Amino acid sequence: VISTLIRERNDELFERAKRVVPAGMYGHTFVGLNPPSYPQFFSRGKGCRVWDVDGNPYIDLMCAWGPMVLGYGDAEVEAAAARQRSAGDCLDGPSPVFVELAETLVESVPHADWSMFAKNGTDATTLAVRIARAGTGRDKVLMAHGAYHGVASWCADNKVGIAASEQSDTAYFEYNDLVSAEQAAAALAGQVAAIVVCPMRHDTRRDVELVDPEFARGVRALCDRIGAALILDEVRCGMRFDMRGTWEPIGVRPDLSAWSKAIANGYSLAAVLGIDALRQPATEIFTTGSFWFGGVAMAASLATLAGMRERDGVGRMSASGERLREGLREQATSHGLAIRLTGAPQMPMMLFARDDARLERSNAFAGACVENGVFLHPRHNWFLSAAHTAEDIDEALLATDVAFSVVRERFGAE
Amino acid sequence: VISTLIRERNDELFERAKRVVPAGMYGHTFVGLNPPSYPQFFSRGKGCRVWDVDGNPYIDLMCAWGPMVLGYGDAEVEAAAARQRSAGDCLDGPSPVFVELAETLVESVPHADWSMFAKNGTDATTLAVRIARAGTGRDKVLMAHGAYHGVASWCADNKVGIAASEQSDTAYFEYNDLVSAEQAAAALAGQVAAIVVCPMRHDTRRDVELVDPEFARGVRALCDRIGAALILDEVRCGMRFDMRGTWEPIGVRPDLSAWSKAIANGYSLAAVLGIDALRQPATEIFTTGSFWFGGVAMAASLATLAGMRERDGVGRMSASGERLREGLREQATSHGLAIRLTGAPQMPMMLFARDDARLERSNAFAGACVENGVFLHPRHNWFLSAAHTAEDIDEALLATDVAFSVVRERFGAE
Repeated sequence: VISTLIRERNDELFERAKRVVPAGMYGHTFVGLNPPSYPQFFSRGKGCRVWDVDGNPYIDLMCAWGPMVLGYGDAEVEAAAARQRSAGDCLDGPSPVFVELAETLVESVPHADWSMFAKNGTDATTLAVRIARAGTGRDKVLMAHGAYHGVASWCADNKVGIAASEQSDTAYFEYNDLVSAEQAAAALAGQVAAIVVCPMRHDTRRDVELVDPEFARGVRALCDRIGAALILDEVRCGMRFDMRGTWEPIGVRPDLSAWSKAIANGYSLAAVLGIDALRQPATEIFTTGSFWFGGVAMAASLATLAGMRERDGVGRMSASGERLREGLREQATSHGLAIRLTGAPQMPMMLFARDDARLERSNAFAGACVENGVFLHPRHNWFLSAAHTAEDIDEALLATDVAFSVVRERFGAE
Repeated sequence: VISTLIRERNDELFERAKRVVPAGMYGHTFVGLNPPSYPQFFSRGKGCRVWDVDGNPYIDLMCAWGPMVLGYGDAEVEAAAARQRSAGDCLDGPSPVFVELAETLVESVPHADWSMFAKNGTDATTLAVRIARAGTGRDKVLMAHGAYHGVASWCADNKVGIAASEQSDTAYFEYNDLVSAEQAAAALAGQVAAIVVCPMRHDTRRDVELVDPEFARGVRALCDRIGAALILDEVRCGMRFDMRGTWEPIGVRPDLSAWSKAIANGYSLAAVLGIDALRQPATEIFTTGSFWFGGVAMAASLATLAGMRERDGVGRMSASGERLREGLREQATSHGLAIRLTGAPQMPMMLFARDDARLERSNAFAGACVENGVFLHPRHNWFLSAAHTAEDIDEALLATDVAFSVVRERFGAE
């Protein structure tokens, strides 16, 4: 399907990009595997909407892949960032917002006694692993098969350019399968520094699995029994489910948690939160970055956390996400199509029951959504924000209805 | 020595920080090892000056540890950043500035055929290593003893929290000692993916050594002979010596170069530049970050590179640095003190010839400079910028003269 959207500027930029960037683009926003309607380059964002470089508007159900929680260009976040910026950002040391943000996070997240900051999710998960290794004097790290904890060597899924040695201390278990975690730990008895786990299983290309509370409690008990640190990777879920931590409602608290994406509404920031028992090891490792102590992202984060609280951000995005899911379910039924909507309203995943490994139906659906002004992804969970209103969702559902009819027409019922 | 500067707000913030951040602070800006006059927290920067949170002003000879090259709050950089910000920063994909910046870097830096972007120096050096491993199918990486290439596991100097496996493919040579590099490569014949090297030896606590051109040419030839990639770590030197690359004047071009710090005047950005032969491997590895494609830092970088060119930034900071070095030499002589001024004017390193391993003279000097309104470092090279005028340097020299007299008084001549 050739897109009917105007792609002139996008295609010109992509041709130029291919000369000066390998493949023209890389990483999670590369559209090379997506339907041809996908734009690669964007010019603007406002509220829950983005515009591509040809001026085509979209209701954004990807939220910049997570960071946007209050809306692009949120007035309060931008005002706080601008105030800090007019004083200074990257200086010879941190600004007062560094302390204020650490205090706010420690106050908000019950397991946390202290905080450290960095720039990306990968920084945070990797720093947490380093602190766990320092605190236990052990090397092995257990993570779930297929989980994404960033692009660091210890956890990278794509092994190209990774030395075998770099993953030789990483071992695996199955998410939501406590026996597999216990077996993995037993096979490395006395050597496990940490178990790293996401608040839910949100791997690409498959249904999202909410955590089984028994699994979460079991992993917590396992860590306590073997003296390993429990690291909760909140990079993707953090601040979308519970401002106290995504596992707080089920009563399971980690020793270390890694945060990024949503904590500063699009400003580059990450945080590691930890318990008192790991405070000393956290002083013994060395980590830093030239831009890690810049105040603007921290000021933005303080405003983001306040805005999420004052505007009931989690409640709003849950309600919008639920409205979207209900609409999608009704539409799928009316078109005679079997879908699986998994995960949670704030971070929905939709797959077609009859799709094969190529996800042809998902691709057709997502491509048609983009054609019709809704930006979402065929293989990755979507994200809602506090900026999505019921009206925005109803407008998005006009596009998804067209997209379902495209799938029905091309692949038949079911 | 108790500082005579007002430290009320600083000390209050530090006390609060100690409750919610391990040791109150971490990384390169932690002042725990510095003389007591050092402020930990900063409130403001403008031009070549910073203010601590108690309002004490400093002429800044650290330039935010490198990133600041055109001056804090540079009008042109901030205007470019603001224009991009009003459209959008972190969106669902890159903005046109992504392509424009890649084109500009590829045009400016002769060895570069392509560019990739990230956020920190560590991201860039580590990405370069990954691409070299992907391109050669080999694992071993050679680096100089004592060199700083960031905080990633493969190169970390502090081993706390690092598994031995993570550095098992890293081997070492002595900077400016070609025989040691050749021996290290010979010991790992057929296994070396890359030799990583800084444009000069700028380790902390010791004289900076400019590169011996014969060493640079020899390392280039060695890489060619053994089929390894030559990675030039430009994170600290980049854009302060030659906009084409720090080794361009000696005619040695790397296969990959890693950039960060100065390329966006304080905005968080890093780049890896590479040759055509490594374009395909660069498409086969997977790397990304939630904030890597944000347009604001890229717009700031374009304005920074333009400003550095239009204002002859390298020439200006060389001239200011030379004026500073001349003044320091004269003052040291007049106080009867033996100093070693090494490195280059733009990135000077000053040590006292008679200092012992504790660097007591350096500490006394730096502490007195801070007391008298000049911010520099006792163990790390300093940085000049295009914002430092002759008048600023002359003002700074008033403080350094007092500082030399403090050293002379406390430790005697020489």
